[in-house]
Amino acid sequence: MEVPSPAHQKRMRDIVETAARVFRRDGYDAGSLDDVAAELDLRKASLYHYVDSKAQLLYLVFDRAITLALERLDELAQLSDPRERLEALIAHQVRIIAEEPSLFAVFFDSRPRLADEFEDAIHSKERRYMRHYAEAVQGCIDAGVLPKINSRFGAQAILGMTSWVYKWVTPQDDTDELTADLVRLVLGEHDAG
Amino acid sequence: MEVPSPAHQKRMRDIVETAARVFRRDGYDAGSLDDVAAELDLRKASLYHYVDSKAQLLYLVFDRAITLALERLDELAQLSDPRERLEALIAHQVRIIAEEPSLFAVFFDSRPRLADEFEDAIHSKERRYMRHYAEAVQGCIDAGVLPKINSRFGAQAILGMTSWVYKWVTPQDDTDELTADLVRLVLGEHDAG
Repeated sequence: MEVPSPAHQKRMRDIVETAARVFRRDGYDAGSLDDVAAELDLRKASLYHYVDSKAQLLYLVFDRAITLALERLDELAQLSDPRERLEALIAHQVRIIAEEPSLFAVFFDSRPRLADEFEDAIHSKERRYMRHYAEAVQGCIDAGVLPKINSRFGAQAILGMTSWVYKWVTPQDDTDELTADLVRLVLGEHDAG
Repeated sequence: MEVPSPAHQKRMRDIVETAARVFRRDGYDAGSLDDVAAELDLRKASLYHYVDSKAQLLYLVFDRAITLALERLDELAQLSDPRERLEALIAHQVRIIAEEPSLFAVFFDSRPRLADEFEDAIHSKERRYMRHYAEAVQGCIDAGVLPKINSRFGAQAILGMTSWVYKWVTPQDDTDELTADLVRLVLGEHDAG
């Protein structure tokens, strides 16, 4: 397989970013490759040099979202203190969502529109993501930092409260304050010692 | 204004329920009034006897979701004990979402697709809904049941963790166990006294 040139890679990044904006603005089904090409000042024929179809472009948007989310996660999941690890995972999820709200709005709102042929690729990354959160929750339960709850419910609850941020956060909201408040809501105040 | 007959009202309910299923299955933009009519075994001309447009039908789906959500809320918001009130609000949100996942999936995923002419009607109900949650969170903060956090962040976090349930809950999950676990995650174990 030929390695894509840096120029090709940059153009692909622009295409995926623009597609996320167009799909967010118009909805996935109503947004078109024509709109994406127009925003990029490209001819549609040139766009087809980079992507095969709108369905593939949605997959590329999703893959970028989940890859971005996974990027630092393997490292954060190594933190040995259970409370610190869960705090880091909550902060990570809030940060990536607040930084790229369009990307994640499309990922969450249009997730059911992903074509079957791309389902396995995205779902296996989602499972890996979920596993990190479930393990972090279980670690906190085992350490007595969280009450004894179903760790899958707890992980989904934490992913829900943090992911939901894309629906309501405004540029005026302080992401650090928000992160600190969500951590305190779940884990309570830090012990004095 | 003429009061609609019971038969008309029932037919409207069927139309809104069917529209929610169709929009969830196909996406709002890809779903059509033809699909809704076909599912109901109605001619499209007959469907137009009840609704003016697909945009209005989406509004009716949203209005049903938010009206259902508001229904018991004014009553639950009267509970005087802050912890009991917040517990009741968490349980309420989980219950309505778990009972009508299609309705709320369309509401949440297609919320940005609502036509401008209907925006005020839905948004004013959403504000009323949000206010109940923010007041319940503030009540818990004042009573020392929750840490001192921004009550809007806290309310959005609780609405996020509970609303997110539509994305992952399965028929095998026990809604009572789920509700109890979310309450414990936020409010900790009940005090013995």
